[in-house]
Amino acid sequence: MPTLVLIRHGQSAWNLENRFTGWWDVDVTEKGAGEAKAAGELMAARGLDFDHCFTSLQMRAIKTLNIALEAMGRLWLPVEKDWRLNERHYGGLTGLDKAETAARYGDEQVHVWRRSFDVPPPAIETGSLFDLANDRRYAGIAIPPTESLKDTIARVLPYWDGRIAPALKEGQRVLISAHGNSLRALVKHLSNIPDDEITGLEIPTGQPIVYDLDDNLAATDRYYLSER
Amino acid sequence: MPTLVLIRHGQSAWNLENRFTGWWDVDVTEKGAGEAKAAGELMAARGLDFDHCFTSLQMRAIKTLNIALEAMGRLWLPVEKDWRLNERHYGGLTGLDKAETAARYGDEQVHVWRRSFDVPPPAIETGSLFDLANDRRYAGIAIPPTESLKDTIARVLPYWDGRIAPALKEGQRVLISAHGNSLRALVKHLSNIPDDEITGLEIPTGQPIVYDLDDNLAATDRYYLSER
Repeated sequence: MPTLVLIRHGQSAWNLENRFTGWWDVDVTEKGAGEAKAAGELMAARGLDFDHCFTSLQMRAIKTLNIALEAMGRLWLPVEKDWRLNERHYGGLTGLDKAETAARYGDEQVHVWRRSFDVPPPAIETGSLFDLANDRRYAGIAIPPTESLKDTIARVLPYWDGRIAPALKEGQRVLISAHGNSLRALVKHLSNIPDDEITGLEIPTGQPIVYDLDDNLAATDRYYLSER
Repeated sequence: MPTLVLIRHGQSAWNLENRFTGWWDVDVTEKGAGEAKAAGELMAARGLDFDHCFTSLQMRAIKTLNIALEAMGRLWLPVEKDWRLNERHYGGLTGLDKAETAARYGDEQVHVWRRSFDVPPPAIETGSLFDLANDRRYAGIAIPPTESLKDTIARVLPYWDGRIAPALKEGQRVLISAHGNSLRALVKHLSNIPDDEITGLEIPTGQPIVYDLDDNLAATDRYYLSER
């Protein structure tokens, strides 16, 4: 039976400050690092093991993975990093805290951006503080100016189909360290969650989510490792 | 001009205790982690940057790389891990400290094993404490029972030729985090150092070694970054 575990990065500095982060490269907090370590220890204690890991190009996910792997004695596992597992790009909201955003745009509009499936926030302004056009990690990539959850799903799923699903079908046990919305994309796909429900699904930080999959990678169960 | 930087892992727990380590998977000390961070900060301050990283399957080299990359803001770079960059396998000496080894085998014999080019120490005993036959990271690999420096070179160079040199020839800037003897193998090759001299070449921990290479990957200069 293929093994797949998803983990959202540990608490980040901007999770704590309640700011829209998206593609901005924010570190994990000390609490977040602790969550990652606890996740690794839990996976090892439950006998979970992996052959291949996938993560984004963002340090909060990469560090969460590295810390968890170290706690498992598995720092030597191959790790593939790809922008398609990055967090949803929050466009012009990047860097704003929830209160600033509400003051500027109104509570109702903010709720729409956070909870609608296909309405993206305003595009990020070219040359603004959080514009990543000159970040060479994204050289050759059409950085989205903003994304709805639907947009995020549209770039996560080809990566699932092209890289992750083939590894699982080969019998590799896979660990994915990523972000709230790139993981929503995967959970929506694997658990067949409707558009209007997936935006309300909260994925807690640092909690390994285990998928039991059949040989066609259809999900037969999904659970938090800490609850079994 | 191709960019190549070599770095030996920061001080490990067994460097400190003066024990033969080889393939045993020993962590870096706090001092070693500090060396790695300082190396990353130095490389960033000097404007060095990379496209691809290579390391061994051993945590002291992997952590050194991760810490240095984090200090450079480059945790997102691709990293390839391969056993062929592992430390020389010290066979039956693994785990012994230098005094124990001298008491058991005599100073002269120990000197031969440490400083000869092609005399391997005794083979590791099957089933002994430090036998890695059941470590799944080496599944499918013919783990050497012991290695001379010559043996180490014989498995490092095919990896250089097969993976690292092609990356450099494509124009990728390369950082290698590895071990005293796997790096001796590379330095011997790149700097044409004779057999009887290479065993005496000390490679300090946590010091970035910069190679200036021509387009055929012939070395035109080699220096410690801290000394320029």
